[in-house]
Amino acid sequence: KKIILLLFSSLSLAFRHDYAQPSTKNCTEEWFMNLIDHFTPDYPPVHYKQRYFAYDHYWTIGNPIFFYAGHEHDVELYVNTMGLFWERAEKFGAMLIWAEHRFYGKSYPLGKNYTTQDLRYLSVEQTLADYVRLVSLIKEKRGSPDSAVISFGASYGGMLATWMRLKYSDVIDGAIASSAPVLSFQTKVPGFEPNFFAQGVTRCITQKGGVATDWCEANFRQAFAKGRLAEAGTTAQGRQALSEAFSLCEPLPDDPETGWDLVYWVETALSHMAQGNYPYTSSYFMNGRGEMPPYPIIKACDTFLADDLMATCNEDPTALCPALYEGIASFVGVYYNNSEKLACNDIYTHLEKESTSEHNMLWDYQCCTEIFQAFGQDGIRDVFWPAPWNATSEAIRCENKYAGILPDMDWGIASFGNPDHWKRTTSNIVWSNGELDPWAGAGVMTNLSDSLISIMIPQAAHHLDLMFSNKRDTHAVRWARNFEMAHVLRWIDERRKKIKNWTATTHAR
Amino acid sequence: KKIILLLFSSLSLAFRHDYAQPSTKNCTEEWFMNLIDHFTPDYPPVHYKQRYFAYDHYWTIGNPIFFYAGHEHDVELYVNTMGLFWERAEKFGAMLIWAEHRFYGKSYPLGKNYTTQDLRYLSVEQTLADYVRLVSLIKEKRGSPDSAVISFGASYGGMLATWMRLKYSDVIDGAIASSAPVLSFQTKVPGFEPNFFAQGVTRCITQKGGVATDWCEANFRQAFAKGRLAEAGTTAQGRQALSEAFSLCEPLPDDPETGWDLVYWVETALSHMAQGNYPYTSSYFMNGRGEMPPYPIIKACDTFLADDLMATCNEDPTALCPALYEGIASFVGVYYNNSEKLACNDIYTHLEKESTSEHNMLWDYQCCTEIFQAFGQDGIRDVFWPAPWNATSEAIRCENKYAGILPDMDWGIASFGNPDHWKRTTSNIVWSNGELDPWAGAGVMTNLSDSLISIMIPQAAHHLDLMFSNKRDTHAVRWARNFEMAHVLRWIDERRKKIKNWTATTHAR
Repeated sequence: KKIILLLFSSLSLAFRHDYAQPSTKNCTEEWFMNLIDHFTPDYPPVHYKQRYFAYDHYWTIGNPIFFYAGHEHDVELYVNTMGLFWERAEKFGAMLIWAEHRFYGKSYPLGKNYTTQDLRYLSVEQTLADYVRLVSLIKEKRGSPDSAVISFGASYGGMLATWMRLKYSDVIDGAIASSAPVLSFQTKVPGFEPNFFAQGVTRCITQKGGVATDWCEANFRQAFAKGRLAEAGTTAQGRQALSEAFSLCEPLPDDPETGWDLVYWVETALSHMAQGNYPYTSSYFMNGRGEMPPYPIIKACDTFLADDLMATCNEDPTALCPALYEGIASFVGVYYNNSEKLACNDIYTHLEKESTSEHNMLWDYQCCTEIFQAFGQDGIRDVFWPAPWNATSEAIRCENKYAGILPDMDWGIASFGNPDHWKRTTSNIVWSNGELDPWAGAGVMTNLSDSLISIMIPQAAHHLDLMFSNKRDTHAVRWARNFEMAHVLRWIDERRKKIKNWTATTHAR
Repeated sequence: KKIILLLFSSLSLAFRHDYAQPSTKNCTEEWFMNLIDHFTPDYPPVHYKQRYFAYDHYWTIGNPIFFYAGHEHDVELYVNTMGLFWERAEKFGAMLIWAEHRFYGKSYPLGKNYTTQDLRYLSVEQTLADYVRLVSLIKEKRGSPDSAVISFGASYGGMLATWMRLKYSDVIDGAIASSAPVLSFQTKVPGFEPNFFAQGVTRCITQKGGVATDWCEANFRQAFAKGRLAEAGTTAQGRQALSEAFSLCEPLPDDPETGWDLVYWVETALSHMAQGNYPYTSSYFMNGRGEMPPYPIIKACDTFLADDLMATCNEDPTALCPALYEGIASFVGVYYNNSEKLACNDIYTHLEKESTSEHNMLWDYQCCTEIFQAFGQDGIRDVFWPAPWNATSEAIRCENKYAGILPDMDWGIASFGNPDHWKRTTSNIVWSNGELDPWAGAGVMTNLSDSLISIMIPQAAHHLDLMFSNKRDTHAVRWARNFEMAHVLRWIDERRKKIKNWTATTHAR
């Protein structure tokens, strides 16, 4: 059986704005001439226009700065969705800054028409240095050197927030890292689970994920691990059955491998639904295709996959099972056709759109260089088809794609280290993870010290805690937000005391 | 009066080898193809040959690696002088590695005939990354991923050793930083003393420095702070008196400013004598000009400047005072003419040699970019002429010299932080300083935590503790070495325990 190396894509996001909530319209879009290269300074220095958003309505000199470490998207997305910032600005008298990650959105170090060659300026180190310089500029411009600065970030942004504190402890007083898979490339750490993501998605479709029955998992296991979707694609009759069950606009092409295209299309929906498994209607993760209902996975499982769909089918794996196909098709309809307005599904257009979107291409480069994340699956502890993580073959894919660039799998590990070392080398970080989030398995799961705190939020998906509050929020996520901000308050107080009582301990001869 | 902005030069060093001691002859010269640019990876990757020396006679797999962070010279100098390594290798079963700093010695990232433009690859960040990759290579090549790695370094090398631990805590388990002026560019830290170096040199010529009388300081104060040397240079008669007293090969040129050339020449000797104020005969700091006697400053002060040399002179600052000139001339003779073989002094040849030596030019570039050290003097708390530290004018000098490169005075501070923050963000570092060392004033002077330790070694000059032991060593420096190595032992044990009891704290779902 063909093993497809899935490219786990960057999140496909777009935000439908709720006009009751603050947004980019309420803050200022600003630009900073930042260095293109911080470590081999150009000669003379060459700069690029880096974008950020700022909000200072409640801020005065000396007050804290909340710094959102933008990640692999247009920063406007984060201004418009990461509501915790907005909601706490008044209480803290904080200035809000959302910085745009180089290359994404409108922050192009080498112009909009950059070449693959130019991507060498897309590195974590350059990005961290961008942010540190931006913080310095803002403090200088505002005449507020003593302001505490707290970095916030979600997902890859949470990794950046963590590393800002780790590498630039002078500039960043503390970090809130939400759903940050900081261990996702720590393949050499003992106990590392390369199948964390597949297992996390699987967990969502079980009773542990809030689903009513065991059938949702069982049906997906038939579809994926037992190979019934891919197998059906190997015959003309099977392809016809799939095309009908999934309401494809064009029947699957006459090729025994095309069942896998459908499998990938289904898998994409499932993984996005798992990440965006929020307690309320949300357009996040929908890439402009409308909204998913509250807890979309639970709804889809309990509505469409709550029975043994194989009951009427032959157990022979080569036998067709239209009932199963239809159940899975209805499930992914919650993602692809939530408006119920589409008459049919065009899987190739969607797959093409995913794989050629600019942010996905940039993110793929980052995953081929520094953020060399592991994604495996075994079909046992997860519902997917067996595809063990193979660093070597992934490295070859990367090498072929970015000719000559071999992922340096050791650099990220050497540079950022792992929590076993952090406990003695950093402080003031809260890592939050959502129990429903497939990324949680690569997050920090235990407290490392009394100021390196891990919290697991029940019934929460990807970085729910950083988003705008909602009347459907659970008590758990409300508590998590307050807990995080209590730590932020402590870090700000720490800095205030430090400044106040600053004693020159040096030069006492 | 003209104020000369002194360029404090990199140390002028050359080593006369004692054949009883191990040296480059006893270890292996090796080369590593390291990345020219670690942060904007070249495409395809471009490498250069970085040199290092290795010694593994006592080492086996799992044993520790002692890593000497080479600094602003040919690494052979450190192999041949930093004897603590050699002397403790057997007890620790340690592998010894001395890495050569990019651009210095034989490690040229862009060939031997590099341009000023190429100097942009000369940065602290690239150097730290060089060393981290080199450690990774050695561990991989030797199949010993669990070896503890301790970074050692003296002076700027001690800064590098500190920052390796600070920035790459996963790779470096602890650091011994000897006489590392990590605060020398921390001009914004409250209590920072920009005149630390001048005050440190001054201290050496007082009773606190072991000198018998107060006259040494008083005479230098007349020569420098009261301007008697420079003033004498303003008249033909004065220049003749100076030329005779200092036995110049060619009389001072007929220019009222030339007295300052002599002043600078004297000052160079004084500052090198202060740094190399060792308890035994030493060729370090002599740049191939023989050896200085034990405690050269004390000897020179007590022999030549132990009386009031102004006693027979007119106090009018414009009056000449040959007795003073002759005393100062004899003093610097300990440095410039220790062999007593020179019939006369050629100050311009020496000044020219200093300012055009390759390592000094490279170091000047580093001081103009990241290591923007402060050097001021006020003629009150030091014996020198008033020349307050002026960051702006120094920045202009740098800008003119490296057209378009303005020193980024904030970057070093933002990037490396200051000890007030380190106490909560790193661990396992011993900073040692010598009480006689002018650099001590920019070192860490207090313990920051129970594993961030500062020790001040009485009667010790620049990084004496890292050098070969000597029968004339004081008890204090012997104790310091044992104290440092006791910490090293603790860090190695820590790592062993960590590896042994490694518990995968993550992924517990």
